[in-house]
Amino acid sequence: MSDLAEGQCTVCQVGAPKVTDEERAELAPLIPGWRIVEVDGVERLERVFEFDDFAAALAFTNRVGAIAEEAGHHPALLTEYGAVTVSWWTHKIGGLHRNDYVMAAKTDRIYV
Amino acid sequence: MSDLAEGQCTVCQVGAPKVTDEERAELAPLIPGWRIVEVDGVERLERVFEFDDFAAALAFTNRVGAIAEEAGHHPALLTEYGAVTVSWWTHKIGGLHRNDYVMAAKTDRIYV
Repeated sequence: MSDLAEGQCTVCQVGAPKVTDEERAELAPLIPGWRIVEVDGVERLERVFEFDDFAAALAFTNRVGAIAEEAGHHPALLTEYGAVTVSWWTHKIGGLHRNDYVMAAKTDRIYV
Repeated sequence: MSDLAEGQCTVCQVGAPKVTDEERAELAPLIPGWRIVEVDGVERLERVFEFDDFAAALAFTNRVGAIAEEAGHHPALLTEYGAVTVSWWTHKIGGLHRNDYVMAAKTDRIYV
């Protein structure tokens, strides 16, 4: 288990650097359940988390919402019957910052 | 204001009838904020609700979740910073049932 989830989500400004190819190669193995998808030309980290029903899915959405509020960094959360799709990216830079990998790792940790 | 939101979401079986063109024409004016979108060949009622921040959006997601649980009929809820996109359709019939219009009207009613 990596300690990526222990990382802090740093304040991200417009113009902050996106993750480099080298960082991607380093970080990807630490969050193996996630894939990079591109939406409207912007890359996001995305993972589908599965649950038994709607209530369990919504409870997870709320847990992810709580860590998002704590970090001041917010994902897109698609809640459906039996599944939550979580997407992290950094609006201000139009792509992936190291913060997004940190938040992905934190999300994995609260999936029970 | 219509009383569509007062309707009950009836138990829907496989093979239940989709809304007819006549019913669509009757129901659409009762939920003017909604549009019909097609995802993977299945029609859904969709509306984007706007909020000031993430917390307000997530609170609305939970209110919609509560009426969904009460009705035993579940939407897809995309929660983002400042917005929730709500989609209603009936999985068992692969499209739109009158129930979905009832739930859309109920959703409008709890948007404050």
